[in-house]
Amino acid sequence: MKTALSALARRTAAPPISWLMATTLARPKLISLAAGFTDNASLPVREARDSMNDLLRSPQTGQPALQYGSTAGEPKLREWTANHLRRLDLGRQHVVPPGGKNYSADRVLITNGSQQLLYMTAEALCDTGDIVIVEDPTYFVFLGIVQSHGLRARGVRMESDGIDLAHLERVLESLKRRGELPRLKLLYLVTYFQNPTGITTSYAKKVAALKLLKKYERVAGHPIYLLEDAAYRELNFGRDALLRVQADRQVGPTTPKSALSVRGFADRVIYAGTYSKPFASGLRVGFGVLPEPVLTAVTRIKGNHDFGTANLLQQTLAHAIATGRYEKHLGALRRRYASKAAVMRAALQKHFPPAVKWDESGGGLYFWARLPRGVKTGVDSKVFKAALVAEVLYVPGAMCYADDATRRKPDYEMRLSYGNASEANIREGIKRLGVVLRKVV
Amino acid sequence: MKTALSALARRTAAPPISWLMATTLARPKLISLAAGFTDNASLPVREARDSMNDLLRSPQTGQPALQYGSTAGEPKLREWTANHLRRLDLGRQHVVPPGGKNYSADRVLITNGSQQLLYMTAEALCDTGDIVIVEDPTYFVFLGIVQSHGLRARGVRMESDGIDLAHLERVLESLKRRGELPRLKLLYLVTYFQNPTGITTSYAKKVAALKLLKKYERVAGHPIYLLEDAAYRELNFGRDALLRVQADRQVGPTTPKSALSVRGFADRVIYAGTYSKPFASGLRVGFGVLPEPVLTAVTRIKGNHDFGTANLLQQTLAHAIATGRYEKHLGALRRRYASKAAVMRAALQKHFPPAVKWDESGGGLYFWARLPRGVKTGVDSKVFKAALVAEVLYVPGAMCYADDATRRKPDYEMRLSYGNASEANIREGIKRLGVVLRKVV
Repeated sequence: MKTALSALARRTAAPPISWLMATTLARPKLISLAAGFTDNASLPVREARDSMNDLLRSPQTGQPALQYGSTAGEPKLREWTANHLRRLDLGRQHVVPPGGKNYSADRVLITNGSQQLLYMTAEALCDTGDIVIVEDPTYFVFLGIVQSHGLRARGVRMESDGIDLAHLERVLESLKRRGELPRLKLLYLVTYFQNPTGITTSYAKKVAALKLLKKYERVAGHPIYLLEDAAYRELNFGRDALLRVQADRQVGPTTPKSALSVRGFADRVIYAGTYSKPFASGLRVGFGVLPEPVLTAVTRIKGNHDFGTANLLQQTLAHAIATGRYEKHLGALRRRYASKAAVMRAALQKHFPPAVKWDESGGGLYFWARLPRGVKTGVDSKVFKAALVAEVLYVPGAMCYADDATRRKPDYEMRLSYGNASEANIREGIKRLGVVLRKVV
Repeated sequence: MKTALSALARRTAAPPISWLMATTLARPKLISLAAGFTDNASLPVREARDSMNDLLRSPQTGQPALQYGSTAGEPKLREWTANHLRRLDLGRQHVVPPGGKNYSADRVLITNGSQQLLYMTAEALCDTGDIVIVEDPTYFVFLGIVQSHGLRARGVRMESDGIDLAHLERVLESLKRRGELPRLKLLYLVTYFQNPTGITTSYAKKVAALKLLKKYERVAGHPIYLLEDAAYRELNFGRDALLRVQADRQVGPTTPKSALSVRGFADRVIYAGTYSKPFASGLRVGFGVLPEPVLTAVTRIKGNHDFGTANLLQQTLAHAIATGRYEKHLGALRRRYASKAAVMRAALQKHFPPAVKWDESGGGLYFWARLPRGVKTGVDSKVFKAALVAEVLYVPGAMCYADDATRRKPDYEMRLSYGNASEANIREGIKRLGVVLRKVV
């Protein structure tokens, strides 16, 4: 007898990370620099407790937090999110510029982490066989969504300030030539301290990418969206950010402006953000800013998924924000990650052979190490196996590349996370990896 | 220019409930007996606060609650869920019977309310054009999932103890004759205090339904699953349940056993349960018990949706359960709903014309009122419009019927909820509706 599984279920492969996680659990002595988990020691235990106590102190505020809410989300949180994005993009400027409708709470949808927004956006825009353009490399769980829905991905090379625009144009041209533009639905960019490379996309590149996509819309016959994934935006701990945070705890536009602010393109940008990483990953609250008709479609889809993110999480977060606990915690978190990144950087300098390259990102959770071409890092490689014997784990770079038939997957990179590992484990883990690498490089 | 929306997005209609909710919000004086919201006054504000304080008191227990967890869910909660279901089905019997693998934590997946489990199960089993059999009437948000995924629904009439088995057999025969059995993937039953009718399915009918489905599997060429939605199972407040709860606070098998316990069919039952309704709807934690290969497929799909339900919610719930707060609250909740149901029953007896019929359910959140055939209740009907003028809202019965081309949708029923309305509003709302009905019946 056959299985009753759907085509989607048959396509949905085990996520690469599940193998890594199982490996971690099976080896208690293993130091994992693979996990995308956040820092344990800085999790806002006290802030969450205080906010929940305020909220659950009386039936007046406690009952609404424990009741169902609306599908779109808690109005206060949507409002704050819109205002927060406006401040991040436009600074203290109070007048919303023309085309500033992206900073309206009406366009904000609260989701179960930004991951759910990515999933529902793919559902709302893409049929099986449709095409999405992604960065090469990109966030691998997005690639899981792509695979699951039977979409085709085309990868675009990265430069130090975001995608290679000339390459993007060549990909668009080739789709046009082959009559496949009508299947192209979106360009997915992780624009701040990208997972996995740490690269931040410049504002100029966002503008240029939007203009390029627009140029091809006539032939496509429909809008081509820019899906901007800003998950790591607030984990900016570069020198300037730190000084500023310490000075007045204000969040200002120290990172490039988002694509939401590009004049004339408000209806082509879908923005995915999260409160999981800047506050607590155990809260799993994310959000999207979406133009019509995608907003209505995604909201209806969420109605079928779960008709609304848990109200208790949303209200706890809204309360932590209103009381200033959120901002205060974020400042501490930035200092914490800055310090952990510095520990990893020093260890890389000390233990890695000079032929291995990496860049400073000034934010996020990752270093992206590039070995000399030819030195493979995949799960079947000598390096990976030797690392396992040495009890240290990384994410093989190839896992972060889309299955794009037109390009070969680079196989000589590794993603190293300082998010979850302790300082001691970061030092020891990089030291162990260094020993492995010095033998093969 | 066309829209870029997918076929799924284009099919996904506005949920019927959104119109009702918008109506409620726009009319502050309106008494809504339509909402499926739970009772406000009995929400466990203190229990949730105490559990969270215990959890967030120290970094040792607080940090894990604020960190990512695994996709399948918190191990303690999965374990407790499996044991709890075993107790509900088999009582205090300690030996798991042969075929009792359904009471293993390995088969439990924690989800964002049971709604997410229903959604992912449909994704994992059904391709566009596939067929599901549902009760006539059924839970209307499930019908939203069916519509969104382009599935075809066939309705089966209800009797006082669950679906009409003879009708189920006729539907299966007709699918067989038309060569459509290979498209049939599942039978969806809301088995306890059904939404909307309040009907509880007898154990004998579950066994008979499973045997019937099995008979047609050979021609279908694949398993045909029974998806048992047990969302209201623990809201059993019938006389026996209340006495028992007051006596020793133990949960025993006072409701019919679930399909999980049917010998020989462990691999054909998917069970959807929730902690939203018996504890707090603002927590939105549900679960599924699934056999392979559906379990693996749904877990992978959840990896793409959100890679795990918020850990803070799961740990709060696990803690409330471990400390006995959950069971204690559930006892209080049963007494509360018993009392509200009694208020609505008395009001119905006093104010509704005798030609309108309804039944006692002993649990859940709803009365299902049947008007004389010919007296329409839909949103365009005289009754509905007059009710709105009188500032009272109900769910028109037709919203709960699948679009089944082979049957006409009954249009003379109404769902009345005592879940969210206060006792005073239940009395006043039913009184107003009674005035409307006495004019037309």
